[in-house]
Amino acid sequence: MTETSHAIRIEDRDDPRIAAYRDVRERDLIGRQGCFIAEGEVVLRVLLGGARFDLDSILIAANRLDGLQPLLASVPRHVPVYAAASPVMDAVVGFHIHRGILAVGRIGAPLMADDLLTSLPPRALVLALVGIANHDNMGGIFRNAAAFGVNAVFLDDTSCDPLYRKAVRVSVGGCLKIPFARIGSAEVLVDALAAHGVAAYALSPSGTTDLSDLVPAAQSALLLGAEGPGLPHEVLQRAHTVRISMADGFDSLNVATSSGIALHALRAKSFPLT
Amino acid sequence: MTETSHAIRIEDRDDPRIAAYRDVRERDLIGRQGCFIAEGEVVLRVLLGGARFDLDSILIAANRLDGLQPLLASVPRHVPVYAAASPVMDAVVGFHIHRGILAVGRIGAPLMADDLLTSLPPRALVLALVGIANHDNMGGIFRNAAAFGVNAVFLDDTSCDPLYRKAVRVSVGGCLKIPFARIGSAEVLVDALAAHGVAAYALSPSGTTDLSDLVPAAQSALLLGAEGPGLPHEVLQRAHTVRISMADGFDSLNVATSSGIALHALRAKSFPLT
Repeated sequence: MTETSHAIRIEDRDDPRIAAYRDVRERDLIGRQGCFIAEGEVVLRVLLGGARFDLDSILIAANRLDGLQPLLASVPRHVPVYAAASPVMDAVVGFHIHRGILAVGRIGAPLMADDLLTSLPPRALVLALVGIANHDNMGGIFRNAAAFGVNAVFLDDTSCDPLYRKAVRVSVGGCLKIPFARIGSAEVLVDALAAHGVAAYALSPSGTTDLSDLVPAAQSALLLGAEGPGLPHEVLQRAHTVRISMADGFDSLNVATSSGIALHALRAKSFPLT
Repeated sequence: MTETSHAIRIEDRDDPRIAAYRDVRERDLIGRQGCFIAEGEVVLRVLLGGARFDLDSILIAANRLDGLQPLLASVPRHVPVYAAASPVMDAVVGFHIHRGILAVGRIGAPLMADDLLTSLPPRALVLALVGIANHDNMGGIFRNAAAFGVNAVFLDDTSCDPLYRKAVRVSVGGCLKIPFARIGSAEVLVDALAAHGVAAYALSPSGTTDLSDLVPAAQSALLLGAEGPGLPHEVLQRAHTVRISMADGFDSLNVATSSGIALHALRAKSFPLT
């Protein structure tokens, strides 16, 4: 193994310097005191590529050090990179880390919804999420938000945490890349969009306009609710409702897939990617 | 609890009549001798609503019997409906069955790819899957195939089984609804499409045509490969390649989401749902 200037070797699974990586699954449940955990090379690349979060440290399986040198060269000097043999790393974490890459980042101060809304460009496409309580769906939605260059995501207070480990992983770093803010109840969310002149389009199986026919406003928000209950009545009443036409007699689409379909359709027609 | 004419009460977890429901997770790995397992009310509805599979039996948590009477009335007379108290059901299955509904169906004789291709209507949209080895993705793709009324799905021999329990569940029954057939290697698959005059459109991040600009043939196949490796070179060379345009610098979309985006775009423009 080549010696690397940056990496600090960890031989002991009880080494206090890597305490933040201990018992990862148990910590998922009790929280991480202002920190989040990121897994895998692609997500680390997002964190090192200008994401708004500060890094605390990185832990890498020793056998991956050589291959990751180009990426590790971009790690700020003050961020320690720890390297441990795979069995030590797995013992610390509590399960096998297939990709051999973990990082701990700082959540920092939350973004304010009003600030995000005020700073939107003249043509903007945002997401507004109501009751998205499943981390797979949250991650999938943020992955699509990043793929289609969404400007911001707003979450009501019944939606789950985009910085939960599984959401970050499923989003392939999208949760770290796309700015998001919480904004209270669904009603407060719709009020805030209206107050800032952002048009609200609510996806619903019974929507009045077919997605393919929608001509959205310059600043548009796509509202998504949980599968099953969908968006609350008060939200549907105050938004322009939009449907994705489907074959008769089949259950509705997964909410993350719906977000991808709608974002693609809006981008292609009204918000071309540059 | 109301007595139900159809339901056969099971009091003993070792009752041999419900042996097919024992140790569900372990059986996922070793197979079910020509059977598959279906979970939940929506999937059972698909099975009872004209799917091509025969039902062996149904096992229901006793406290769900009353609410399911309208659906159970459509169960063929020769199919036994077993009812067990939730703790008995959970003990048989090996974990908690949240929705309280399981069914065992017969896989039967596999459909032949040639027959499916020959019987396509003059305007048809099919999927062709290469190397889709993840059951979540397989289920998600079939869910979208059902939502957008795809005529058939063809799988190469490296794709996983759409009748695996998790794939069926994630598809919300789509795997049971949409006819599918295996067809050997990816090359054999592309040959068969060409032999039947079905145009092949391969989704690829480096595709030459933007999905939004695609004008597909009357009989069209959308080819999807696994995330990461994507479609093999030999397939891309022999198909019309199509891309979903994304924001710069972000990882590609999930393959199930991609299928939803592409099917929606093709349906909206070229294969309107009736």
